[in-house]
Amino acid sequence: MRLRGRKGIRENLEAQPELIVLDPREYKGRWKERFGNDRPIYVELGMGKGQFISGMSVRYPDVNFIGMDMYDELIRRAGEKGKKAWAEKTGQNVEDVRPPNLNLALGNIEFIEEFFAPGEIERIYLNFSDPWPKAKHGRRRLTHPRFLNKYKQLLNEKGEIHFKTDSQTLFEFSLNAFAAVGLQMSDISLNLHRDGINENHVMTEYESKFHAQGMNIYRCEVKVGQAALRNYEEHKMDRF
Amino acid sequence: MRLRGRKGIRENLEAQPELIVLDPREYKGRWKERFGNDRPIYVELGMGKGQFISGMSVRYPDVNFIGMDMYDELIRRAGEKGKKAWAEKTGQNVEDVRPPNLNLALGNIEFIEEFFAPGEIERIYLNFSDPWPKAKHGRRRLTHPRFLNKYKQLLNEKGEIHFKTDSQTLFEFSLNAFAAVGLQMSDISLNLHRDGINENHVMTEYESKFHAQGMNIYRCEVKVGQAALRNYEEHKMDRF
Repeated sequence: MRLRGRKGIRENLEAQPELIVLDPREYKGRWKERFGNDRPIYVELGMGKGQFISGMSVRYPDVNFIGMDMYDELIRRAGEKGKKAWAEKTGQNVEDVRPPNLNLALGNIEFIEEFFAPGEIERIYLNFSDPWPKAKHGRRRLTHPRFLNKYKQLLNEKGEIHFKTDSQTLFEFSLNAFAAVGLQMSDISLNLHRDGINENHVMTEYESKFHAQGMNIYRCEVKVGQAALRNYEEHKMDRF
Repeated sequence: MRLRGRKGIRENLEAQPELIVLDPREYKGRWKERFGNDRPIYVELGMGKGQFISGMSVRYPDVNFIGMDMYDELIRRAGEKGKKAWAEKTGQNVEDVRPPNLNLALGNIEFIEEFFAPGEIERIYLNFSDPWPKAKHGRRRLTHPRFLNKYKQLLNEKGEIHFKTDSQTLFEFSLNAFAAVGLQMSDISLNLHRDGINENHVMTEYESKFHAQGMNIYRCEVKVGQAALRNYEEHKMDRF
């Protein structure tokens, strides 16, 4: 039964090749070709049920979004959310809609360098990543320096990482990791919705839930390479 | 009466010229000469009643400590704390004791560049600085970039800033300021005493009180100049 259930999901995913990518290795270095345009690519690593990436894709049609996760079932659910969001936006039926700027990719982030070519990504979103609270699992955290050094390679000269979490310990770990790897931080927030919901931020499923419970949401942006230098010189001091 | 009270304090301070510096401008560039040795100088900016700087001075006799504040009464109290701490350490009477590595200086940090020469300080402590919560007072915060740029000039090549606060908003502001000024952060903690009191950290009056109330203490270290580079290359990655 379990196998049949899984097989059913896999067939469902295979039937949507324009939306769902079951082997992202196939598109390494060719994602812009796949999207059919030269727009920037933003990737959410660990997109869960897909509320954030779906909301972003309808809000920012001039950006190409890829949501990545390692479980079939999450890819299926995110696909439904993405189609529903675009059906609402366009007035089409959910069955007929084809989100033009959204892909959902099945993949283990451990192998991210096999899915993307250097400089192919312009922004990475890390939303409510698993905090892996035990010290011995620290290397699995998606903000561990070994991952950050991979992201640095894959991001382009405007590259940024946008990171949100409800976990105080993961946020603390991540700030130290960003600093240790020499990434330029900005927009650090220790209580994102201190002054009420910030409408500029599309919320994830977790975020909606945690915020309703009155929990802190932490957030930080990180700039990589040239973006970091340019930003530092031109903008950063204006805020103070 | 008020004037006589103040005058009494001032006379008290003037009677302790070996411990208390009423015009720190006099020693700009000559602090090591004043201490009579070549040991590093650590300065606490806004030392309040002096619990931290007194505790540090007895714990680290190989460092010269300067506690700075702008109020006579705080200088007086910190002087008493410092003498008491050294009396306990040495077994001398409080009246006779002369803390060898502690000075208390009356001064407005706004003019810090008039009190110290470039490279004269090795470490700055900022403990529970006034958060100045209103945005219009942001420039008065001791971690505002205009202060950070002054500190950068006054710190030597091993220079560090150690910052502790209970204020979430001040800590958030400060992390962004450190990042914007391009200072190398490390040892960022969002809950300093998460695993119980850390005995390596001398606590301030505020800290003892806040921690007893179960409040979060935030802490961060910042490296300046050569220390930042060396630290990044040699040490930082070992922690992960």
